Amino acid sequence: MVKLNSNLESLSENYLFVEVARRKQEYAKKNPFAKIISMGIGDVTLPLSKVVVDEMKRAAETLSFKATFKGYPPYEGYEFLREAISEKYKSLGVKIGTGEIYVSDGSKSDASNILDIFNRHSEVLIIDPVYPVYRDSSIINGNKVRYLRATEENNFLPMPYEGLLGDLIYLCSPNNPTGAVYSKEQLKKWVDFANQNRRIIIFDAAYEAFIEDKNLPHSIYEIEGAKSCAMEVCSFSKSAGFTGVRCAYTVIPKELEVNGHSVGKAWLRRQSVKFNGVSYVTQKAACASLTSEGKKGVLECISYYKTNARILSEAIGKLGLWHIGGENSPYIWFKCPKGMTSWEMFDFLLREANIVCTPGSGFGESGEGFIRLSSFAAHEEALYAAQRLKELKI
Amino acid sequence: MVKLNSNLESLSENYLFVEVARRKQEYAKKNPFAKIISMGIGDVTLPLSKVVVDEMKRAAETLSFKATFKGYPPYEGYEFLREAISEKYKSLGVKIGTGEIYVSDGSKSDASNILDIFNRHSEVLIIDPVYPVYRDSSIINGNKVRYLRATEENNFLPMPYEGLLGDLIYLCSPNNPTGAVYSKEQLKKWVDFANQNRRIIIFDAAYEAFIEDKNLPHSIYEIEGAKSCAMEVCSFSKSAGFTGVRCAYTVIPKELEVNGHSVGKAWLRRQSVKFNGVSYVTQKAACASLTSEGKKGVLECISYYKTNARILSEAIGKLGLWHIGGENSPYIWFKCPKGMTSWEMFDFLLREANIVCTPGSGFGESGEGFIRLSSFAAHEEALYAAQRLKELKI
Repeated sequence: MVKLNSNLESLSENYLFVEVARRKQEYAKKNPFAKIISMGIGDVTLPLSKVVVDEMKRAAETLSFKATFKGYPPYEGYEFLREAISEKYKSLGVKIGTGEIYVSDGSKSDASNILDIFNRHSEVLIIDPVYPVYRDSSIINGNKVRYLRATEENNFLPMPYEGLLGDLIYLCSPNNPTGAVYSKEQLKKWVDFANQNRRIIIFDAAYEAFIEDKNLPHSIYEIEGAKSCAMEVCSFSKSAGFTGVRCAYTVIPKELEVNGHSVGKAWLRRQSVKFNGVSYVTQKAACASLTSEGKKGVLECISYYKTNARILSEAIGKLGLWHIGGENSPYIWFKCPKGMTSWEMFDFLLREANIVCTPGSGFGESGEGFIRLSSFAAHEEALYAAQRLKELKI
Repeated sequence: MVKLNSNLESLSENYLFVEVARRKQEYAKKNPFAKIISMGIGDVTLPLSKVVVDEMKRAAETLSFKATFKGYPPYEGYEFLREAISEKYKSLGVKIGTGEIYVSDGSKSDASNILDIFNRHSEVLIIDPVYPVYRDSSIINGNKVRYLRATEENNFLPMPYEGLLGDLIYLCSPNNPTGAVYSKEQLKKWVDFANQNRRIIIFDAAYEAFIEDKNLPHSIYEIEGAKSCAMEVCSFSKSAGFTGVRCAYTVIPKELEVNGHSVGKAWLRRQSVKFNGVSYVTQKAACASLTSEGKKGVLECISYYKTNARILSEAIGKLGLWHIGGENSPYIWFKCPKGMTSWEMFDFLLREANIVCTPGSGFGESGEGFIRLSSFAAHEEALYAAQRLKELKI
């Protein structure tokens, strides 16, 4: 008799953003004239740059001719895109070969599917609070999940210590949801810890484009020793605005081995069985975002969102609430006033300011009592939200 | 200490098509002047139709304006595409609601990822020979795999019998690699068996567009009772030529439950954790292929490939070799002469006729001694291959 995977029942009833959307819709229905501003989901709002769209159209056009038609893409992505990504690493002073890069449809897919190649008894260490995908995909897969608490005291950047358990370590920096960014010195400690204890770090660099502080690392490979203990997941979603276009990549250095077996080879094997590559049109578009023209477009968007982040940060600061993020990240993370829970504050902000935020508790227990604001909105909205925040009576 | 998933080692060393490509490259290197014709991989070769490409370009264009920009797509696909798919089912006399349709980036992804929602102790029944993805993804996932032999005697369409084990049953019709198609009467027996024994059928209809015999079912839902025991995976790859564009869908009827739990709900939960939807541009393109103009384009391509299939079928017939398929399918499946193994015949065809085929043994033990020819080629190539086949001395 067929049975469902009972791990699915261990997941919280609704995926965070589904619940946020539900409450927002419910409120909108009851208050049809309320002008609700969404500072919740981490979705981009600015259009794609012209160079990217032109390239998409050009690539689509080539599929209409027999001579230039493209069928199944390579499992690991087209060489042209992997070369452009390799060049991007070179600009960070990091040498990553095209054979170490695996293109995919999203860093969410990669960060969760990567568990397929590890022993199911591997324990997964995640920072709490964090992007729920690491936790939920580990639960579905049946891995034991261990939590390392990020708190106000450690500035939401917890560090490893002797005896810390967890075979696979998810690190996300700049962090989603807190916006906290590990320094090179801090990451070096993680790398040393992983190498000494034979752990593997899955480094999520999805928000690296938001880093402006020149001393902060964009990639874990800026840290010596990382190639033998870390893979890195990155995406075009938050840099080139590809949340709706779907393109990402994972770097697995040749040096990364488990008991003499290549991790990259295991991943390619997994991908060849369960994945059929990314659209040619999408890969061409991603590549366009890495040209000098494309990079200009990326920078403009990032700077637009960061202006929002500054506006929101300032408003939260004026309210006298403890907060971090917003500088090298699109997210502002602040503490709820008067001991309110995250969902209480969510409802309060929705009711009193018509602002949709993301409750920190949705990212883990240690997120309770905190709120994430996202800067992926229009300037007008950010200004409007800031105004409402400043007028709040708390 | 981290360990890899040891199931990966249970996979055969190279994924079938990787090995085919390797041998082809090796031969081409040694024989630089040989004109090699590829009748191997099941990849389409005709360009996308104009209506599809125009729609892709239009959709890309809308992403360049703030007012029409689209971010994260819905996990289950846009309503417009699910409506078009629902209409397609209506034309088969089948009622499938948009809430029962889940869009994805490929039927390979769906057919393998679906295992995530079932208990890992579920046994998987697969027809042997068959598309290797069912077997390989089951092995990676740790499911016990049982085989039901398809042979010359049962025309490569094996039927269920009392005592047949296997909780999840993969059926592929028209079959890859054999081209064999289950009749309605045969599928009814499978459906009854599944309902009586509480099994779930994962029906892969990726090649349904090739069916021209009006009595053969395009969808398992043409069979009474199928909604309570079957999900169906289908794709735009082989109909609209989307192997390089990446779009597919899975139907999970509301009636499909396991111990009172909705299978569709479990799948959506899995997708919301591990997947972020399909590109808006791709979904618009898929939708265009389902318009009356789009369907015309699909029919033209299918008919082109089927002319090839007839040409190849005839050539194989003239050689006096036992064969099936090629009528309601793009594939011809024939028996190797003189007791040759599949790889022996592969090498023989490559050497003597410069034709790349797919060895039947790559699809399972019972495929040993057989060869798959694919009709996804240019007419000139099919004619050329047919000529060479006819001249073969076997």
